[in-house]
Amino acid sequence: MEINKVLLTKKFMFSASHRLYKPGLSDSENAEIFGKCSNPNGHGHNYILEVTVSGNVNDETGYVIDLGELKRFVQDRIIYKVDHKNLNLDVEFLKGINPTSENIVIRIWDVFEKEFKSGNVKLYSLKLHETENNIVEYRGGKL
Amino acid sequence: MEINKVLLTKKFMFSASHRLYKPGLSDSENAEIFGKCSNPNGHGHNYILEVTVSGNVNDETGYVIDLGELKRFVQDRIIYKVDHKNLNLDVEFLKGINPTSENIVIRIWDVFEKEFKSGNVKLYSLKLHETENNIVEYRGGKL
Amino acid sequence: MEINKVLLTKKFMFSASHRLYKPGLSDSENAEIFGKCSNPNGHGHNYILEVTVSGNVNDETGYVIDLGELKRFVQDRIIYKVDHKNLNLDVEFLKGINPTSENIVIRIWDVFEKEFKSGNVKLYSLKLHETENNIVEYRGGKL
Amino acid sequence: MEINKVLLTKKFMFSASHRLYKPGLSDSENAEIFGKCSNPNGHGHNYILEVTVSGNVNDETGYVIDLGELKRFVQDRIIYKVDHKNLNLDVEFLKGINPTSENIVIRIWDVFEKEFKSGNVKLYSLKLHETENNIVEYRGGKL
Amino acid sequence: MEINKVLLTKKFMFSASHRLYKPGLSDSENAEIFGKCSNPNGHGHNYILEVTVSGNVNDETGYVIDLGELKRFVQDRIIYKVDHKNLNLDVEFLKGINPTSENIVIRIWDVFEKEFKSGNVKLYSLKLHETENNIVEYRGGKL
Amino acid sequence: MEINKVLLTKKFMFSASHRLYKPGLSDSENAEIFGKCSNPNGHGHNYILEVTVSGNVNDETGYVIDLGELKRFVQDRIIYKVDHKNLNLDVEFLKGINPTSENIVIRIWDVFEKEFKSGNVKLYSLKLHETENNIVEYRGGKL
Repeated sequence: MEINKVLLTKKFMFSASHRLYKPGLSDSENAEIFGKCSNPNGHGHNYILEVTVSGNVNDETGYVIDLGELKRFVQDRIIYKVDHKNLNLDVEFLKGINPTSENIVIRIWDVFEKEFKSGNVKLYSLKLHETENNIVEYRGGKL
Repeated sequence: MEINKVLLTKKFMFSASHRLYKPGLSDSENAEIFGKCSNPNGHGHNYILEVTVSGNVNDETGYVIDLGELKRFVQDRIIYKVDHKNLNLDVEFLKGINPTSENIVIRIWDVFEKEFKSGNVKLYSLKLHETENNIVEYRGGKL
Repeated sequence: MEINKVLLTKKFMFSASHRLYKPGLSDSENAEIFGKCSNPNGHGHNYILEVTVSGNVNDETGYVIDLGELKRFVQDRIIYKVDHKNLNLDVEFLKGINPTSENIVIRIWDVFEKEFKSGNVKLYSLKLHETENNIVEYRGGKL
Repeated sequence: MEINKVLLTKKFMFSASHRLYKPGLSDSENAEIFGKCSNPNGHGHNYILEVTVSGNVNDETGYVIDLGELKRFVQDRIIYKVDHKNLNLDVEFLKGINPTSENIVIRIWDVFEKEFKSGNVKLYSLKLHETENNIVEYRGGKL
Repeated sequence: MEINKVLLTKKFMFSASHRLYKPGLSDSENAEIFGKCSNPNGHGHNYILEVTVSGNVNDETGYVIDLGELKRFVQDRIIYKVDHKNLNLDVEFLKGINPTSENIVIRIWDVFEKEFKSGNVKLYSLKLHETENNIVEYRGGKL
Repeated sequence: MEINKVLLTKKFMFSASHRLYKPGLSDSENAEIFGKCSNPNGHGHNYILEVTVSGNVNDETGYVIDLGELKRFVQDRIIYKVDHKNLNLDVEFLKGINPTSENIVIRIWDVFEKEFKSGNVKLYSLKLHETENNIVEYRGGKL
């Protein structure tokens, strides 16, 4: 009886560098599309990732999910792989994409889809803050 | 004609202590489930409660609801009862539960359900921030 | 095939003054309804406007929308017209309303509806923070 | 024996409008000096005032000063007089000045000098945040 | 030649409960002095501790101090002992004091004095945020 | 008569990448000293730079300095050169140093020393936030 859903959000931070560009184009063509974000030597951000899951409250514990369990999953499978890394070169699950915030959250969603199992707790939303003012959110493609 | 809904959110802060545990279990059994959150002498937080209501904009005032009215309700019925209190021992509307953030927001929702009347303004969402990084949201059980 | 939607949010700040009142009423009648917000000489805020649009990720760029394009639209059509202004007297698109946060976001939504065109990118939500603790959100009238 | 000083800071918020201008100059001359800050109909801010006092820790209470006492003083003598007010027109202790942040903090310092008595507790610093990015600090004129 | 000093600050968070009271007084006498902070069952906070050290920049590393070294010291000797604890009952280095913020920072300073050795790096300041609005700072007793 | 000093602070943000390492050492030797900060492909941050100047309040304007003048200087001479850049490779005034926060603020101080002239306004302090939790401050070498 999935009738009493609570959303639980945990925030994580990682520091990474990236460069936005399309491989087939010249530096000046990339600069035209991506502006200062395509600087050939890269730039970087302190990203904040907000992971929101949904589930019923467990009668025994009063938890949707043990936050320690969620933290370990996200730290091990995601944060560890992107923190203090170059998002164009160093991250297996980001291979083959232009590392915009939009593409990054979709790929992180895929990691959850494949690897995250915790009773009937489901991933509800991922928010990625590239700066304090620029944020993307992904809920699996539907709104 | 409920056709032009606006959401209005007001944030409140309270400082409280709590201990997570199941009454029937020993301290070490509770420690296994709740970790450092089950410290027998308790710990505490500066909680932030975000109350979001929905309603139509009143043609006369331009308000969904007078923020003063909302503030008085939340201060009197909720914040006054939990601020600078022990959530396991001091709060009538939290009796009989393990005071996890999930259980707290559900009980606060119940207080609204029973006591909050303000035209066709409805409670839409409650968010409770236990720390800057851990947040629960409840929208009455549906998503 | 609009099947893989991402939300993109950009935050903007503006500093403005306003006074809440109904034109037909006396100062004391307005004070009864709007309290200190109806001070005849006005008061002011650092408003934060969060603009959220939805769209599919462009295969070429990895963007929902070029943030520069969104920034220029919001800066030129909205922020430029309200920043360091009196919201009762100086702003064309706020004429004829009591400048509550609720009325302001609805009028900003109207500006988007009339003037914002960017492929299949759509305005999804506007949030206006009047202070750190008081926030309204508008999603076009539906929830 | 004033040998073990602790600094204690309390933050306060107020929302006010103002206009920067020199009375003897025309609107266009003022605009040249003060730019958008001299808009004739004014603009406004959510100001944050940080009051820092210094003193020894009282052996009986463990306090430098009872925060309630400090709060009442600042609320009654300062915040109550500027919150939801026009800083050019409504505030006795700001009469005769151009209400820049620099001038405002100096005048607030004067209010403390005249009216604040609390054992050997002394005002140490006033910080005024006009926006998140623009802040002035005054320590009585010395550094 | 200690002539080119840089200050380095690292922030830490801990969640703890406490009760303010003087042992020899009754609950009602304590309530008169400490108000809601003397609630017999306690309350709590998410404390933020800012540790600032001063030192010369090492020519080899470009560091004042390795942040990892500072982090380990503060985590092991201080945060580990207060996080998710009751500050009246559970913390050896707070024994015998009324756990006001003032008394807490002085005792944390003492821990540094006794145990922290790192070349010519010195503790410069401790700031303890009890809430977002209430902060104490200690610089060893001098200003 | 420099007798009534006010401090004025303006905050700036820039996004940059860097790698910490000593040129003469191998990757593994650098990893031993700088840990994850020496990742060969770099990482990055959203840096916040707080520039604090001191000066007397101008009787005519009520300003220590026109914030627009300060903003233009910092944007043109500093932020423009580091924003969306690689701090090891792209920035003239950072050549020859390991781009730790300590070294970066000292070099930015040097830029001010050489190029910033504005009456008797003086640079008082530079704070550089590498992340929300790690901050350095430089006041010209003295404390």
